[in-house]
Amino acid sequence: MEIKHEIYLDNSATTRVCEEAAKKALELMTAEYGNPSSLHTMGVRAETAMTQARRAVAQAMSVQEKNIVFTSGGTESNNLALFGAAYARRKRGKRIVTTAVEHHSVLYTAQQLEKEGFEVIYLKPGRDGYIREEDVFEAVTRDTILVSVMAVNNETGAIFPVEAAAAAIKRAGAPALLHVDAVQAFGKLPLRPAKMGIDLMSISGHKIHAPKGIGALYIANGVHLTPRVFGGGQEQNIRPGTESVPLIGALGAAVEALPPVAQEEAAMRALNQSLREKLADMPGVVIHSPEDGLPCILNFSAGTVRAETMLHFLASRGIYVSSGSACAKSARSHVLTAMGLPQKEIDSSLRVSFSRYNTEEDVAALVTALEEGLRTLARAR
Amino acid sequence: MEIKHEIYLDNSATTRVCEEAAKKALELMTAEYGNPSSLHTMGVRAETAMTQARRAVAQAMSVQEKNIVFTSGGTESNNLALFGAAYARRKRGKRIVTTAVEHHSVLYTAQQLEKEGFEVIYLKPGRDGYIREEDVFEAVTRDTILVSVMAVNNETGAIFPVEAAAAAIKRAGAPALLHVDAVQAFGKLPLRPAKMGIDLMSISGHKIHAPKGIGALYIANGVHLTPRVFGGGQEQNIRPGTESVPLIGALGAAVEALPPVAQEEAAMRALNQSLREKLADMPGVVIHSPEDGLPCILNFSAGTVRAETMLHFLASRGIYVSSGSACAKSARSHVLTAMGLPQKEIDSSLRVSFSRYNTEEDVAALVTALEEGLRTLARAR
Repeated sequence: MEIKHEIYLDNSATTRVCEEAAKKALELMTAEYGNPSSLHTMGVRAETAMTQARRAVAQAMSVQEKNIVFTSGGTESNNLALFGAAYARRKRGKRIVTTAVEHHSVLYTAQQLEKEGFEVIYLKPGRDGYIREEDVFEAVTRDTILVSVMAVNNETGAIFPVEAAAAAIKRAGAPALLHVDAVQAFGKLPLRPAKMGIDLMSISGHKIHAPKGIGALYIANGVHLTPRVFGGGQEQNIRPGTESVPLIGALGAAVEALPPVAQEEAAMRALNQSLREKLADMPGVVIHSPEDGLPCILNFSAGTVRAETMLHFLASRGIYVSSGSACAKSARSHVLTAMGLPQKEIDSSLRVSFSRYNTEEDVAALVTALEEGLRTLARAR
Repeated sequence: MEIKHEIYLDNSATTRVCEEAAKKALELMTAEYGNPSSLHTMGVRAETAMTQARRAVAQAMSVQEKNIVFTSGGTESNNLALFGAAYARRKRGKRIVTTAVEHHSVLYTAQQLEKEGFEVIYLKPGRDGYIREEDVFEAVTRDTILVSVMAVNNETGAIFPVEAAAAAIKRAGAPALLHVDAVQAFGKLPLRPAKMGIDLMSISGHKIHAPKGIGALYIANGVHLTPRVFGGGQEQNIRPGTESVPLIGALGAAVEALPPVAQEEAAMRALNQSLREKLADMPGVVIHSPEDGLPCILNFSAGTVRAETMLHFLASRGIYVSSGSACAKSARSHVLTAMGLPQKEIDSSLRVSFSRYNTEEDVAALVTALEEGLRTLARAR
């Protein structure tokens, strides 16, 4: 069977780079290719391109340009935030609060910090995928120096209690910085870090139609991080190294091309609802994503068919979804495990994730293929 | 005056992305945009693109694909090499040997390691810009755990004694790893790390017509580095984070497009000789780059005219050169200072750096503009 059309429903793993971003990257690779640190005109023009991109990112968060530091992606942003904050505040305490279902770039960094003498509390979600606010308030004590909570879980779409975390820090009178991994949420939820009491916020370009290899960290005014990388002083000396001007420009262009959050939310909600309704009719399918989670993510168990089997079956039809998160590859989902789901449900769980390039037709094609898969693959067992 | 043609002679700061690399990046942004960690066909195709690029980089060094780890650039490669090696070997000694004229991503990382309890020896160059082999042999002792020497100095083009460093480690019976910052040398000198006793070698894409934001670290077989970044397990868990497939692909394409080293060397040598001859006729001009250095770099003192003044004058004629290195921006060159050059010569020093896109006409235009600058700017003082 020749695949005429690809139906890409794995947008939480990565996205297609939008035309605006690709065009900007191309321009900054081949025409305006100066080094922003160069003193001459070409350097200045490269710096200007970078400043425009920084402004776009800052405006999308309603913060100032100086609060934005570009990195190589979400993983580096998360690492910089956790190490940078923990080291900078280590004299004030050793306690760090996070969740058991963060992305591995937060989770494994937290584990490394534990090895280095920090104490880390990992909050567990309920069966519904949510972190309870009361658990956050209980965990944040007077000597907590860092709270790291993702805005949206990347596997289920569950929205996490970021504002409760900010309130908990305040109530405890803790010297804690609040870090939010907003890799999945940026562009999809109205995030105003300066207003929400967020000190550090990580974003990634390739989840919002910018290329892979670029991200940013929001750093609130007055927050000092211990740097992880040493070099030529770029990015306020917090993240030195010649800036990836093409990717930074592309990130700015991708941010400018983002639809208004409410519009995007409504479009994603429609696709989500449509798929939910159709899945409800399929025998053995169990939906794991909460109803009021981020609508672009829908996690469900595909009956008795193993996730990998179904995933490859769908791919053979030109339909691309994920089993768990892409980053964990074929490892068993730590998120669904922490939620206490039955093993069989975990092993057959798929994640569908929408972008603005998806349509109702894509949902229909997925449903048709899923139905066929459930029929033929279950029979083949 | 309208600038019709730009004469870019700042290729050690950064280069124009070649057509092959830009095309590959574009393809991997907009068509083959899968996440290499995704299990489906689009993920597999992205991984294949990455493997091809890895092969190209590995072949250019005559090493195996598994020896190549992609990073966000030279700075990250250097940081990973130094921290990774020092931490991994800290139980075997505390002594690190490097030079006083490394790039800041090595120098400041070494200084950070000093703060953490390591002992660092900084070898000084002579007035000719060279590091003496006997100094290397003397510095490397039995308890040295790391030697980090750049292959080529980025400001002068002086070639450093990498093979002497390897021999010194062997002679001392030291547990040292040898790291080479080959950011300026890769593609321009025949570097065979596996044959030269090099354990770690940093390269950067944007110095060889790939985009800014991509680099690699060669890691010899059996060499263990303590990771700096924690996350989803990518790049053999040494450098996790979703891989920048577009930039990795572009790096591979740029490496494949490199002319043979000998051919490149001859072309650069011709431009270098031509410029040298013309500079020799200019009153007050002093050349700082050694005759037998890397020919694509030529550092000289532009008489009594301050470097920044001349740089802007040349830029107004559409000719782009550097004062010192781009990364240090307007700070006084630590390289020329370590060489013991007179202050006045340092303050007026320019770096011209060629690429394969430069021609004899570019040299002629530079010389004409330099002569005019020397005449008019000196008068204006």
